[in-house]
Amino acid sequence: MAMLMASRRLSRGSLMAESLRSTTFWRSISTAFREEKDTFGPILVPSDKLWGAQTQRSLENFKIGGDRERMPEPIIRAFGILKKCAAKVNMEYGLDPSIGKAVMQAAQEVAEGKLNDHFPLVVWQTGSGTQSNMNANEVIANRAAEILGHKRGGKFVHPNDHVNRSQSSNDTFPTVMHIAAGMEINSRLIPNLKILQDSLHSKSVEFNEIIKIGRTHTQDATPLTLGQEFSGYTTQVKYGIDRVMCTLPRMYQLAQGGTAVGTGLNTKKGFDVKIAAAVAEETNLPFVTAENKFEALAAHDAFVETSGALNTIATSLMKIANDIRLLGSGPRCGLGELILPENEPGSSIMPGKVNPTQCEAITMVCAQVMGNNVAITVGGSNGHFELNVFKPMIANALLHSLRLIGDASASFEKNCVRGIQANKERISKLLHESLMLVTSLNPKIGYDNAAAVAKKAHKEGSTLKEAALKLGVLNSEEFDKLVVPEKMIGPTD
Amino acid sequence: MAMLMASRRLSRGSLMAESLRSTTFWRSISTAFREEKDTFGPILVPSDKLWGAQTQRSLENFKIGGDRERMPEPIIRAFGILKKCAAKVNMEYGLDPSIGKAVMQAAQEVAEGKLNDHFPLVVWQTGSGTQSNMNANEVIANRAAEILGHKRGGKFVHPNDHVNRSQSSNDTFPTVMHIAAGMEINSRLIPNLKILQDSLHSKSVEFNEIIKIGRTHTQDATPLTLGQEFSGYTTQVKYGIDRVMCTLPRMYQLAQGGTAVGTGLNTKKGFDVKIAAAVAEETNLPFVTAENKFEALAAHDAFVETSGALNTIATSLMKIANDIRLLGSGPRCGLGELILPENEPGSSIMPGKVNPTQCEAITMVCAQVMGNNVAITVGGSNGHFELNVFKPMIANALLHSLRLIGDASASFEKNCVRGIQANKERISKLLHESLMLVTSLNPKIGYDNAAAVAKKAHKEGSTLKEAALKLGVLNSEEFDKLVVPEKMIGPTD
Amino acid sequence: MAMLMASRRLSRGSLMAESLRSTTFWRSISTAFREEKDTFGPILVPSDKLWGAQTQRSLENFKIGGDRERMPEPIIRAFGILKKCAAKVNMEYGLDPSIGKAVMQAAQEVAEGKLNDHFPLVVWQTGSGTQSNMNANEVIANRAAEILGHKRGGKFVHPNDHVNRSQSSNDTFPTVMHIAAGMEINSRLIPNLKILQDSLHSKSVEFNEIIKIGRTHTQDATPLTLGQEFSGYTTQVKYGIDRVMCTLPRMYQLAQGGTAVGTGLNTKKGFDVKIAAAVAEETNLPFVTAENKFEALAAHDAFVETSGALNTIATSLMKIANDIRLLGSGPRCGLGELILPENEPGSSIMPGKVNPTQCEAITMVCAQVMGNNVAITVGGSNGHFELNVFKPMIANALLHSLRLIGDASASFEKNCVRGIQANKERISKLLHESLMLVTSLNPKIGYDNAAAVAKKAHKEGSTLKEAALKLGVLNSEEFDKLVVPEKMIGPTD
Amino acid sequence: MAMLMASRRLSRGSLMAESLRSTTFWRSISTAFREEKDTFGPILVPSDKLWGAQTQRSLENFKIGGDRERMPEPIIRAFGILKKCAAKVNMEYGLDPSIGKAVMQAAQEVAEGKLNDHFPLVVWQTGSGTQSNMNANEVIANRAAEILGHKRGGKFVHPNDHVNRSQSSNDTFPTVMHIAAGMEINSRLIPNLKILQDSLHSKSVEFNEIIKIGRTHTQDATPLTLGQEFSGYTTQVKYGIDRVMCTLPRMYQLAQGGTAVGTGLNTKKGFDVKIAAAVAEETNLPFVTAENKFEALAAHDAFVETSGALNTIATSLMKIANDIRLLGSGPRCGLGELILPENEPGSSIMPGKVNPTQCEAITMVCAQVMGNNVAITVGGSNGHFELNVFKPMIANALLHSLRLIGDASASFEKNCVRGIQANKERISKLLHESLMLVTSLNPKIGYDNAAAVAKKAHKEGSTLKEAALKLGVLNSEEFDKLVVPEKMIGPTD
Repeated sequence: MAMLMASRRLSRGSLMAESLRSTTFWRSISTAFREEKDTFGPILVPSDKLWGAQTQRSLENFKIGGDRERMPEPIIRAFGILKKCAAKVNMEYGLDPSIGKAVMQAAQEVAEGKLNDHFPLVVWQTGSGTQSNMNANEVIANRAAEILGHKRGGKFVHPNDHVNRSQSSNDTFPTVMHIAAGMEINSRLIPNLKILQDSLHSKSVEFNEIIKIGRTHTQDATPLTLGQEFSGYTTQVKYGIDRVMCTLPRMYQLAQGGTAVGTGLNTKKGFDVKIAAAVAEETNLPFVTAENKFEALAAHDAFVETSGALNTIATSLMKIANDIRLLGSGPRCGLGELILPENEPGSSIMPGKVNPTQCEAITMVCAQVMGNNVAITVGGSNGHFELNVFKPMIANALLHSLRLIGDASASFEKNCVRGIQANKERISKLLHESLMLVTSLNPKIGYDNAAAVAKKAHKEGSTLKEAALKLGVLNSEEFDKLVVPEKMIGPTD
Repeated sequence: MAMLMASRRLSRGSLMAESLRSTTFWRSISTAFREEKDTFGPILVPSDKLWGAQTQRSLENFKIGGDRERMPEPIIRAFGILKKCAAKVNMEYGLDPSIGKAVMQAAQEVAEGKLNDHFPLVVWQTGSGTQSNMNANEVIANRAAEILGHKRGGKFVHPNDHVNRSQSSNDTFPTVMHIAAGMEINSRLIPNLKILQDSLHSKSVEFNEIIKIGRTHTQDATPLTLGQEFSGYTTQVKYGIDRVMCTLPRMYQLAQGGTAVGTGLNTKKGFDVKIAAAVAEETNLPFVTAENKFEALAAHDAFVETSGALNTIATSLMKIANDIRLLGSGPRCGLGELILPENEPGSSIMPGKVNPTQCEAITMVCAQVMGNNVAITVGGSNGHFELNVFKPMIANALLHSLRLIGDASASFEKNCVRGIQANKERISKLLHESLMLVTSLNPKIGYDNAAAVAKKAHKEGSTLKEAALKLGVLNSEEFDKLVVPEKMIGPTD
Repeated sequence: MAMLMASRRLSRGSLMAESLRSTTFWRSISTAFREEKDTFGPILVPSDKLWGAQTQRSLENFKIGGDRERMPEPIIRAFGILKKCAAKVNMEYGLDPSIGKAVMQAAQEVAEGKLNDHFPLVVWQTGSGTQSNMNANEVIANRAAEILGHKRGGKFVHPNDHVNRSQSSNDTFPTVMHIAAGMEINSRLIPNLKILQDSLHSKSVEFNEIIKIGRTHTQDATPLTLGQEFSGYTTQVKYGIDRVMCTLPRMYQLAQGGTAVGTGLNTKKGFDVKIAAAVAEETNLPFVTAENKFEALAAHDAFVETSGALNTIATSLMKIANDIRLLGSGPRCGLGELILPENEPGSSIMPGKVNPTQCEAITMVCAQVMGNNVAITVGGSNGHFELNVFKPMIANALLHSLRLIGDASASFEKNCVRGIQANKERISKLLHESLMLVTSLNPKIGYDNAAAVAKKAHKEGSTLKEAALKLGVLNSEEFDKLVVPEKMIGPTD
Repeated sequence: MAMLMASRRLSRGSLMAESLRSTTFWRSISTAFREEKDTFGPILVPSDKLWGAQTQRSLENFKIGGDRERMPEPIIRAFGILKKCAAKVNMEYGLDPSIGKAVMQAAQEVAEGKLNDHFPLVVWQTGSGTQSNMNANEVIANRAAEILGHKRGGKFVHPNDHVNRSQSSNDTFPTVMHIAAGMEINSRLIPNLKILQDSLHSKSVEFNEIIKIGRTHTQDATPLTLGQEFSGYTTQVKYGIDRVMCTLPRMYQLAQGGTAVGTGLNTKKGFDVKIAAAVAEETNLPFVTAENKFEALAAHDAFVETSGALNTIATSLMKIANDIRLLGSGPRCGLGELILPENEPGSSIMPGKVNPTQCEAITMVCAQVMGNNVAITVGGSNGHFELNVFKPMIANALLHSLRLIGDASASFEKNCVRGIQANKERISKLLHESLMLVTSLNPKIGYDNAAAVAKKAHKEGSTLKEAALKLGVLNSEEFDKLVVPEKMIGPTD
């Protein structure tokens, strides 16, 4: 980092440049930098880094947010995949095989995350992601050159002519956006949501016989089983997965082949189809070439759509986690129906106090995902003409949401849902104290008498049975026969 | 309205009630009110209105927002449909056929919008929509009683026992939400989006031969056809329709049969399936009973999801309308590539000034739809236990978005898109002035010479041809042969 | 409405026009319409309406959303105020006094809401609000003409030359936006928030002695008084008022005098200051002329800012209402610390079930206000060059939020907060059952013993005292002396 | 990182623990870990890290988002400041001075960012931020112990008893939130906004004489100066600063002293005032103790409010940056009125193509800030009872927004605004081609003739002058005398 800072300062201003040439300082660091060039001229780059001139310029021109804001890793890896596939297809169209193979090998290293340190650019750069595309081109070119025994910066393998061949930032960046999102959805989001769904479902089965009071408007209502309650949560997560799946047909469409404005200028016919096929093979996901490349560059509706699905999942998870922490509230002064696993010291002084920290983490995630959805929407709506230039922000926000929901679902399942126990005693106590069981008496003693029983019990703080016996509307045996919560948890024959 | 206000005041306070009994004022309005009762006691209701006591109480307790905020009409109509179907199915389960038929007839009138004036309640009421459900029950009961020759308020047809039989507000309100949204989507949103898609497609075909300058980063780029540009818009709208369609399987699921907490207490087995079938038949839409009634009452993820699709459509339409107004900017000092239809006086003094008012209306709609999406998300995430109590807000906001997008798409198509003309002269002028056509010279004269040509032209404000000839890198004939925009609008063989 | 529809159809198409001239139908309705003209030519307008040609055209071109979507009444009234003030100032600059006075009289009628029926235009029109400005000009001109004994449509008083003199839609519409919002804030929002603040404060005082269990992470924590809890709510509302007040200096700035692009072309020097002074006098609010008219036309940051304050208030009210409904949950199976007023039948069968319907209404309002904030933000960010053309949407959304928060605060206060009672018995029971009171024993018996007491009580479901006595760490008297919640509700000396 | 992973695995499961005790593996890493304890028992912690048991547990329980999601640095530094101040005040209340001073010294190191590597926890943890508070306590305690010559983990200085003395996570975390935000606002946001304001103002002065065409509805309108246009931008930024300043009185209120639920249990009277004073002195910012501690723990309205101000600034910056890129569009086929600085290669083939990358970066930032505002709003609205448990998310999102707006404003100013040049030739050409200058002829030749001139010019694509001369309505000299844009840029005397 210190080196990097030095590099930033060094590349500025002639005074500094002058001093460099004449001082011992220069000698002392002369091996730490090398010169790279682009059409703006030469610029110093740290010797131990593979990036080139355009990356270096972006570093200096976009000091926004610091290291936390680096382009997310799934984008870097997707660049590796794409550039590898591009080299492969380009060889079919005439790219020198020795260079092509070296590019493929270098790109593979990027795809595996081995060269992450060479991707220093932040999200807040040019809105086309051009600088990150050039970062990938420069790193892969330099690495491929090294593989072929040439030195960095010599352009034996050229970032544009070889690595970026038949491509434009305008089609590569949307392509890596889709690759990265598609992979994260399939490797992180959906598996973790499925684990959560399964875990909720197991609880639903486990709790199938436990009858509890229902609550509507936060007020006591007619009973249901705890299993039924959890079946609702299960369904929410299940549908959440369906919702994301529904968006995939559009996420699997790749812009590659559209080049600068969507026309495909400077590519050969068929290039778009072949590269999508190569990416599909590489990722084992059904990527295809986009039906309409103009839409694929100028809009990111597919990201807005998928973010909408994540936003829906966030509302589901917020509801579920809220319910669980409220049902687990207590230990003495809350609802106390659920016992949540204790993962860390709640308080050294209040045994039984289990802070529902996993619920808290996931609901915070949900709030952020709702916010990211707005960010993505605003970015998505602001495209102009042939290119939407909110690409890095949109990509970053969606990948953020995907990762947060995916990770938090796993954490929530592992550290909370899986270990939830029913506080059967408490559930039963609340159920039997409830006044709404009086509903069962209606057919026998009539609505008016039933209401009188309930009102008396409420007023006197007594049980329904006590009130019924006092009022003499039925005897103890009759009451016990009629007031049976088990008969209230489904429709009748 | 004046009567209503009188009614509101009258039903308050014993002093007023006392004075009413003893004054001539009372005699003069004695026929204007009748007494209705609920478990809270009697209350005065305007004689000419069909609603009952619970509606009247809601009117008095929720003075929020005024008449503009009435429960949206599609909800009222959906209540008519649902109550008609409920009576039909209830007759199978033993409801007196004479009463059942009268209820069906009254409900049909509600479904047709004939009794809209009898639904005065605002959205900002109880979060379960109970009061609107009771409004429907009361109006239909009173109307059915009249059909059978009985008077209003006499409860010959009972709002709860007959009209609301086997139902709870907790399942009817989500059911009418889904019916209303399903119908609006099918009758308004999708047809209007299809009209817009077709119109954009027609333009895409019409403009197929018109080559124009592309713009990326709002800067001049390589060319494409105006038809290609419109094909991007067409695709956006087409996918928008797909997006909404994807959400329908969950929107078509009806909560009816879940009653109070989702268990179906107080219904008979099969009731849920039959009523969904009846609604499907009545609406000619594939409604089915919800797979899980607990989810159907406690969450409105289906609405959040559909709103997410609308939000995506809003981003698409925002982009399209923004492009169209910018491409139509001018007449002298803008881009001027499109000529938009003039629908109203722009300015009496500036002929040719066409304000893109339809673009403005639809982009405003888009902003509101994005906002509504957040409102729906917040409401959707805040369910507690067995019931989400943001139902009327969620319903209102989604129906608002559906109507706005549907109507605005139709208006935008009819009053703008359909009449768009290409300003061919201007398009051609800009295209040929553009410096980026120099790209075509690369193969012939090399990159360095081509760049020199472009730089010279830029510096001198000349054409590329003039610059090329001055530099002597090729002759006029060669230039004309090479610089052919028609060859730049697709990949090569 | 039927008439209006007829009018819409009639003004379309020559075929219809032809048939009109030759049929008896025409004779039968000939008195129901009059012809009005603008630069587009003649158009039929309903005879009983005061609006003119431009209003009629907008009606036909913007069929979006229906009657619910009419420009909100505070905007109409603000137009009345502004046009009255403009006539007054214009007379100083030479407007014929007889015409000026008639305009002032007509405008006063608009300001009083007497001519609301003559403002049929919806929000979703031109983004400058030009059509509503013309609606105001046309109605006032026609009404002023009538006052002076001339007939409608004759332009004796001219909508542009007289009523709109020295004005442009581009400065009048932002001006009425600010007037309308400023008035709603002062007449509805702040008074109602103050009532709510006072009511919460009264409860805070009333509940000052009631010690209750605190809850953090929804789990039992150390005690506080119910009064302290309500003091937090009071502070939230109090700061909410402060927040809105902070935004007023920018809301009180009026664009009037900027005319078309902010330069003030076609006005006289001093006009801007004078008209702001006139509006200030008329409204009794400290309106001033905007410091920079270019900002005032091109941006609506003041609305975004005020909406941000409302958004903050919405988060406060959401929190307060959520707490109140959860604290009032029950009657048997919830927290049950608060008894909320019962305003309508909760359920005919469950006495004591009080649905917290006012909490539900206001939290729904909060969700919508949060959504509107996003709509306003999106609209506010999308201005282009000299004019933001999301004006009607921004105005509508903010006025919607203002009205909803204002009305809902009043309803919530009147029908809920004012009547909240503490369930002292329940509060005391929960407090004394709580395990966290053990904290008080630390100084006497040490942390380890105290923890042992708490753990034993938790495990055995006993009271702390029972556990302490069983463990023999202190006697009954000592326990009672040490465990005193009253000493736990503040810092020590 | 590898070590960290090892640590994570090691602390899990007895099988692993067993194998550790008996293998050479154990010996090889035995020096790399030490044992730390909390009430849950012992746990292994990397030897080179200062954190303790509770931090380690959080690391293992919240694997959400990875390193990018670490608690933001300003929070860590604010913990340093707060803990230093707490030690200082606690010494006044009896804390052993030798320990107190060591704590102060260790805390100072945290405040300076020297111990950042010892704060590994992510944002997505417990919603109270307890784990980060314990992280700070543990690190400072271990470091202070070292300073005093004791070893890590020995608790010579105790995380709770010494470092966290008189504090609770529930008051410390909101306190560091306010300290961190207050400092970022004052040290980053406002200075950078001021720089931007000054730079825009300079441009406004520089461009004061340049008259250009105005644009409303994106269409040509009456003229203004480029300086006037930039004065609007300047005013937007200036008001943005005012907006943030308005929120500071509530941001400067510190929760410290409220302890667990706001009552101040376990603190001494006056502690709250003294610690706020100490923080004020340390930061040189006017922090005070919160007026109401219950509000300060249970709600984060102050953050929602400040985020609302940032959201407003984001709308301003979005508008400004959009205008600048559109005004700078071209070089041949856009508006071309501004020349933006070229900071990096736009395209190697299209000289003059300057991608407005700084506009793109800042508008992406604006979109994210709008999204973060929603996240903060959702989090802020979801507090329950005595504690809002969305604290880390709210803190993170606001600090994110503050940093992004601050950094992006500086970058935008330095790399774009400062270097903007007016393309005077182009501006003048557009101005004089414009048809709306015809307005000036009205007084001389009347509206009808002027309109005829404009229409003729529009139709024939000629200049106004040519049209006027052809129509013979005035001569060349008259035309030149009347059509003077300089007279159209302000009100007349």
